[in-house]
Amino acid sequence: MSIAEKTLKTERIYEGKVINLRVDTVELPDKKYSKREIVEHPGAVGIIGISNEGQVILVRQYRKAVDDFLLEIPAGKMEPKEDPLECARREFKEETGYSASNFHFLSQCYTSPGFSNEKIFLYKAENLFKGIAEPDEDEYIEIVKIGFTKALAKIAKGEIQDCKTIMAILMAKETR
Amino acid sequence: MSIAEKTLKTERIYEGKVINLRVDTVELPDKKYSKREIVEHPGAVGIIGISNEGQVILVRQYRKAVDDFLLEIPAGKMEPKEDPLECARREFKEETGYSASNFHFLSQCYTSPGFSNEKIFLYKAENLFKGIAEPDEDEYIEIVKIGFTKALAKIAKGEIQDCKTIMAILMAKETR
Repeated sequence: MSIAEKTLKTERIYEGKVINLRVDTVELPDKKYSKREIVEHPGAVGIIGISNEGQVILVRQYRKAVDDFLLEIPAGKMEPKEDPLECARREFKEETGYSASNFHFLSQCYTSPGFSNEKIFLYKAENLFKGIAEPDEDEYIEIVKIGFTKALAKIAKGEIQDCKTIMAILMAKETR
Repeated sequence: MSIAEKTLKTERIYEGKVINLRVDTVELPDKKYSKREIVEHPGAVGIIGISNEGQVILVRQYRKAVDDFLLEIPAGKMEPKEDPLECARREFKEETGYSASNFHFLSQCYTSPGFSNEKIFLYKAENLFKGIAEPDEDEYIEIVKIGFTKALAKIAKGEIQDCKTIMAILMAKETR
């Protein structure tokens, strides 16, 4: 039976722009001890936008952490106390220029619960209308529109390497 | 157009048991600068085991990072230079006691490419035979078997909160 771990000590290692790092010393059920390295994250949203022609709106961007260009759904981190749906509307507009009259909640889940509290809220956006993108000043984003069937094929071929994007496409398929 | 970011400086913040943290100063395409906080992770595997009776083998465990008990597919981090498939066989056996004669590759993807290089390799395990679980000494795991339809219902109801688990169940459904 799994039991919650009592924190005996917290060591704060780093306070950053996006993440913080702390190391907790915890007591295990058998009175042994262990260290838990924990990355604190404010939470994020991801939006699978589907155009009126049935195309999926993706973004391609360089990701320093993996040193590669990834094809992803538009996404971004939440501001303090920001409502996830409001954040989704904001990020979708900023990154792609699109607004949507229909946001449908798909899922909320932890991306890496073994070492981080990052939770991502996923939405499907439909009934799109185009405006002007306003990405953050350190974001360089290319918009890529592909048909839904092609998106599924890209998952099967391993050409989409981002977990939240794979998840959002498969969940959007479930709710079509 | 998205362009790779040149690293001007790397500051190593923390070297841990599971993760390391570094902060890179990067040059952006317009000659501005930014900081990238990067969590280095050795990579992981996740296994959706499906019993001969069609049940999904899940594990419930306390996750300190999110301070909650999560229902997940068996998973674990890779040892240095370990082959992902070998790691999957090892972790599946250690956590659940099950071996499988049929491991089917589902996907490899990044869990949080905005701040981490963690890549997870997902497999579907079938033709299971039961042995004895041997979890790591700081793991306390409860094994939960549920029917495939019930697993899908738990996703819809938000009772499965782990991204890799949702992804693995949906991908296993695609390949049934």
